[in-house]
Amino acid sequence: MPYNPDSTPLTRDSVLTAHTLIKPHIRRTPLRTSTTLSTLATTNLPPSSPRLTLYLKLEPLQKTGSFKLRGATHSILRIPPTTTRVATHSSGNHAAALALAAARVNIPSTIVMPAISTPSKIAATKKYGGKVVLSGPTAPERQKALDEVVERTGAVVVLPYDSNDTIVGQGTVALEVMEQVRELEGEDVDVIVTPVGGGGLLAGCALAALGTGTVVCAAEPKGADDCYRGFYSAGQERVESVEARTVADGLRTPVGVRNWEVVKQHVKAVFRVEESEIFEAMRLVWERCKVVIEPSSAVPVAVVLWNKEWAEWVKREFEGREEVRVGIVITGGNTTLEKVAEMF
Amino acid sequence: MPYNPDSTPLTRDSVLTAHTLIKPHIRRTPLRTSTTLSTLATTNLPPSSPRLTLYLKLEPLQKTGSFKLRGATHSILRIPPTTTRVATHSSGNHAAALALAAARVNIPSTIVMPAISTPSKIAATKKYGGKVVLSGPTAPERQKALDEVVERTGAVVVLPYDSNDTIVGQGTVALEVMEQVRELEGEDVDVIVTPVGGGGLLAGCALAALGTGTVVCAAEPKGADDCYRGFYSAGQERVESVEARTVADGLRTPVGVRNWEVVKQHVKAVFRVEESEIFEAMRLVWERCKVVIEPSSAVPVAVVLWNKEWAEWVKREFEGREEVRVGIVITGGNTTLEKVAEMF
Repeated sequence: MPYNPDSTPLTRDSVLTAHTLIKPHIRRTPLRTSTTLSTLATTNLPPSSPRLTLYLKLEPLQKTGSFKLRGATHSILRIPPTTTRVATHSSGNHAAALALAAARVNIPSTIVMPAISTPSKIAATKKYGGKVVLSGPTAPERQKALDEVVERTGAVVVLPYDSNDTIVGQGTVALEVMEQVRELEGEDVDVIVTPVGGGGLLAGCALAALGTGTVVCAAEPKGADDCYRGFYSAGQERVESVEARTVADGLRTPVGVRNWEVVKQHVKAVFRVEESEIFEAMRLVWERCKVVIEPSSAVPVAVVLWNKEWAEWVKREFEGREEVRVGIVITGGNTTLEKVAEMF
Repeated sequence: MPYNPDSTPLTRDSVLTAHTLIKPHIRRTPLRTSTTLSTLATTNLPPSSPRLTLYLKLEPLQKTGSFKLRGATHSILRIPPTTTRVATHSSGNHAAALALAAARVNIPSTIVMPAISTPSKIAATKKYGGKVVLSGPTAPERQKALDEVVERTGAVVVLPYDSNDTIVGQGTVALEVMEQVRELEGEDVDVIVTPVGGGGLLAGCALAALGTGTVVCAAEPKGADDCYRGFYSAGQERVESVEARTVADGLRTPVGVRNWEVVKQHVKAVFRVEESEIFEAMRLVWERCKVVIEPSSAVPVAVVLWNKEWAEWVKREFEGREEVRVGIVITGGNTTLEKVAEMF
């Protein structure tokens, strides 16, 4: 029977099952607080709002440097044992993640990467055991190269976000945030904020939180705000393309079809940030929390620190509460010192 | 009775007691492995050496961004409850550490800092509640300013490294490395490598490891190699001053008097690295491990990755072993993006 990445139901139970499955293959990354950031975030709220306590889930410390290993590993562990090769196209974190996930179970992988990809990302993918096939930069060129790989090798394709197995795998990060806040405080996390690009992480976290009392919100750059526009449009139609103008290279993709169904039903709110706020939040996390993060990861931090709509939402949503516990998924840290030097 | 920071005996038991005392006030920072770094380090060894597995103890994720909080907190918890103020001089991590440690138990602190200190370090010290007094840059000017504070306020001085209470407090980081490797692997860590400047951390770790089977080694920049020269001299005399030429600003101090007694007796070996190796190791930890580290923290990483004497020592010391587990204390992450941009 061919592999159907969408046979896994989009439920909280599926996320729990995925977590059990992938645990031996991933790191349970640290969750950390920061008094500085929590104080800053609280200062941004209107008078007589609750106090915010922030919990940063550090997926840059995940193997391959991003949360993408979760979805890739879950997909790999779900494909039939007769599979002789897997393949994908990606210029980013999914490339290295799939290469490592596949290597862990001795399945060869081919990753189509645009020839213009950062050399360090190509090197990382190769290091984890992936065979890299270079393609042109446009979506059709990448797809064509992938189709050729599939035709030639019979490889099973593992999608970066628009598949149930990927979505459910990414959601395991929210389970850990919920567990870790409870271990630390004996209380539940109230809100989890994640960045949104293709929507795999966001949808997965929303599923993980279903029925728990924890709500999930999304953070998006204004320069690629398809999710925000779709979410707050009359018919909640998915916005199918976006002219992405943002430094947050992981968030330039429009939300996927499967992801959108989950997002519009189960995500509580979507917030947007300016590019300058992304830079400033990145600096704060680097300098105060000592964690190397890529621009996409700074987007939810910027929301929580400076966004006015967020501030009003918190006050309204948690009226009368003394403290609100906010988990932030810091998604990845794959960047180079040269890029940082350019940015600052 | 006035506070005597040297009444605590320099023993492993004192480190264990210190750990119990300071645990509620510090973070148990994560310990992480890196396949990339472990492979690189193993490649550097002569043929038929054991395989190295590296464990990075991430003190940049400690409160105030460095291990210095351990010694400062231990000292603060040992001073008499009648103390109305503490003071120190420091341009570095001890400043913020003492300010926070004192604030936690509601003792006011005064920190003498050279006026030429990095503005971000002065700001951090103030943020944690320290009263900052600026002084001239030379050692006598700093000492004079501190003497004046003591005379005026009756403050108790907490030294950055040359005191038993500080030494024993810093040693708690080695206890955690030993615990965490055992939790992770069910086996003991074989070697712990720490940087050496004033020697508080190194001496403390050596005490923590006494009688455990784990040995402790030191890593020093060639540009400030007083410890190396003293250690390998005929009479093992302490080298009292050093013309420090190194980017590793935390390691420019010669080893202290109390520290030296412990170091020469209980440290197994001392290794030196070039400046270029410090930069390269810093880049590797940033880019591969996603942790912001300051140059001093890169020194032991550079030893383990590239030092020839280390490589020969490992082969000799662990003859016949298949795997050797190496803990590396990553001491701190206090730097700014501007400095990084300058460096790379």
